[in-house]
Amino acid sequence: MEGGGLPAKHKVWRLEKRPVGLVKEGDLVIHEEPLPQLTADDQFLVKNIYISIDPTQRIWMTDKEQYLPPVAIGEAMRSGTLGVVVKSNTSAYQVGDLVAGLGSMQEYSVATPAAGLQKLDKGLIQTAHIPLTAFMNVLGFIGITAYFGLLDVGKPKEGETVVVSAAAGATGSLVGQIAKAKGCRVVGLAGSADKCRLLTEELGFDAAINYKTENVEESIKRHCPKGVDVYFDNVGGDILNILVSAMNLYGRIVVCGIISQYNNEGQSSLTTLRDYEKVLLRRLRVEGFIVLDYFPRAAEAIGALAGWFAEGKVKNRVHVVKGLENGLKAINMLFAGENNGRLLVQVADEPAL
Amino acid sequence: MEGGGLPAKHKVWRLEKRPVGLVKEGDLVIHEEPLPQLTADDQFLVKNIYISIDPTQRIWMTDKEQYLPPVAIGEAMRSGTLGVVVKSNTSAYQVGDLVAGLGSMQEYSVATPAAGLQKLDKGLIQTAHIPLTAFMNVLGFIGITAYFGLLDVGKPKEGETVVVSAAAGATGSLVGQIAKAKGCRVVGLAGSADKCRLLTEELGFDAAINYKTENVEESIKRHCPKGVDVYFDNVGGDILNILVSAMNLYGRIVVCGIISQYNNEGQSSLTTLRDYEKVLLRRLRVEGFIVLDYFPRAAEAIGALAGWFAEGKVKNRVHVVKGLENGLKAINMLFAGENNGRLLVQVADEPAL
Repeated sequence: MEGGGLPAKHKVWRLEKRPVGLVKEGDLVIHEEPLPQLTADDQFLVKNIYISIDPTQRIWMTDKEQYLPPVAIGEAMRSGTLGVVVKSNTSAYQVGDLVAGLGSMQEYSVATPAAGLQKLDKGLIQTAHIPLTAFMNVLGFIGITAYFGLLDVGKPKEGETVVVSAAAGATGSLVGQIAKAKGCRVVGLAGSADKCRLLTEELGFDAAINYKTENVEESIKRHCPKGVDVYFDNVGGDILNILVSAMNLYGRIVVCGIISQYNNEGQSSLTTLRDYEKVLLRRLRVEGFIVLDYFPRAAEAIGALAGWFAEGKVKNRVHVVKGLENGLKAINMLFAGENNGRLLVQVADEPAL
Repeated sequence: MEGGGLPAKHKVWRLEKRPVGLVKEGDLVIHEEPLPQLTADDQFLVKNIYISIDPTQRIWMTDKEQYLPPVAIGEAMRSGTLGVVVKSNTSAYQVGDLVAGLGSMQEYSVATPAAGLQKLDKGLIQTAHIPLTAFMNVLGFIGITAYFGLLDVGKPKEGETVVVSAAAGATGSLVGQIAKAKGCRVVGLAGSADKCRLLTEELGFDAAINYKTENVEESIKRHCPKGVDVYFDNVGGDILNILVSAMNLYGRIVVCGIISQYNNEGQSSLTTLRDYEKVLLRRLRVEGFIVLDYFPRAAEAIGALAGWFAEGKVKNRVHVVKGLENGLKAINMLFAGENNGRLLVQVADEPAL
């Protein structure tokens, strides 16, 4: 089936050099290229509407050990995507279907069913008034990450104290909201007064700490008078090490990300957990997790999150940058902490539903 | 009831100075003192037969954060003990009862039921020919530590690879034997060729690595061709950090002890876990545990261990030093790694049963 009106060319961000430190022009380069063509029976063509900008992309740009194959030099840069099927050779995906999953930073992509793109429920979107961006955030990878990372790995109990770093970020802000929905005391760490206000005034956090201006150790003590039971770590580095010493007996540290270190090439000494003896003495559990492992259970998370979203307990905060050509700029906004909410690049207008 | 023939005086090791580095004369001092007297209705007098020498005693000698109150200056040095009741004001403990638990390094001690000393089953000891020392080793704290640390925290599956450090030590050797009983590949790290031979030739380990003479990183790769699923860490330090990089996806690091650091006052930078990012990328679980938390489930461990002991699957290896006056010498033997098996100081002859 033919979607009609397709351009002859489109734009693609390709990885041309492995970045050292921050991602610079020349590391990622945008190209205008011929529109990809369907060449096999099971293929379909997706027109991307949104692509997501994630800290983990910085890992994919390296050739260090990681949890997915590195993006090869010359390859289109991998990213989360949400798009609409505009041409299809397979009945499994039909023109007009909305699909979300792992794609890359380009206007159009050829996919097969094996790519595992999830079809979105248009009926639900219309009746429940769910914004499309929610599927790139609360009801997407981010939601699944926050849900299982906090509940399955962190296992907070009602009344316990949960601390989350990068708390104004996409995952962190959701972790805090879920922890509140579960009856925990929630303290967030963020890098500006505005972000801290957002956490306490809009997202229901009990307290927020500006790690750039406050003494984190003292602020944690003040805001966590009963100690810390779960630390959801998005950053690693010094903040991790302060938290290790603030944990209660049987505390859990959920290792979700180490954003403080992603641009520190070769300084692996920075990714250390000091005071390892506290892991012993306080019987801490320090556990890493990657959302991919939880994809088989995604429906459980999405179901719970959709409920909380409908009740207003979790908010869909997105920061949309328009235009694929701003992809590199958006990546650097993320590492500078300049985004407010889940950072998306809008590649095309949303379709009428 | 009176046990008869009690001396007027006895010997006691007291902590007189907090050691810096290795424990030296003057830190622990042996005194001859009047025999302690029963002064309350619920008291009984224990004549100690064995006291155990444990790495954790070095922690108790400090006033750093720890899992039990530090031993106070002037106090009798805490230790594991096995003894016989020689005088009692309470029907809960009768003269002739054999008792084991936490006591101190002295010939006689006054205890109450609240001290939680376990009464040993003399009938079982006689019919099953269980040596008394087994209750200070395989069927005591050590056994409970190895059993729950490996099985409850490490959760090895049949066919997985388990690595244990300080593998010729009391806990490590037992961990390896239990892992073999559970069908795992077991590799031990020890500090001499003799200890390595013991592991492979007598205790059934699949391989042993002499960490003092071998390149541990290469030896781990050679002996663990499928990677490491469980690392039972008794030592911390450099070996921990080599193992972090050898762990498989979803690997578990059981934090049982950090003996390499116990004599390193003030060098807390040594107790670091480097390559924290591997905890994330490989979804590792790093979990500390202290045997005290498992005391309520002790019977489960002792039951299983008694079965394996009867079948010859776990051996009761003890290294007995005679004479309470050799207590300090024994402590330094332990940290020099000079003992072969569970290190006990024999304070008095075993009673006829």
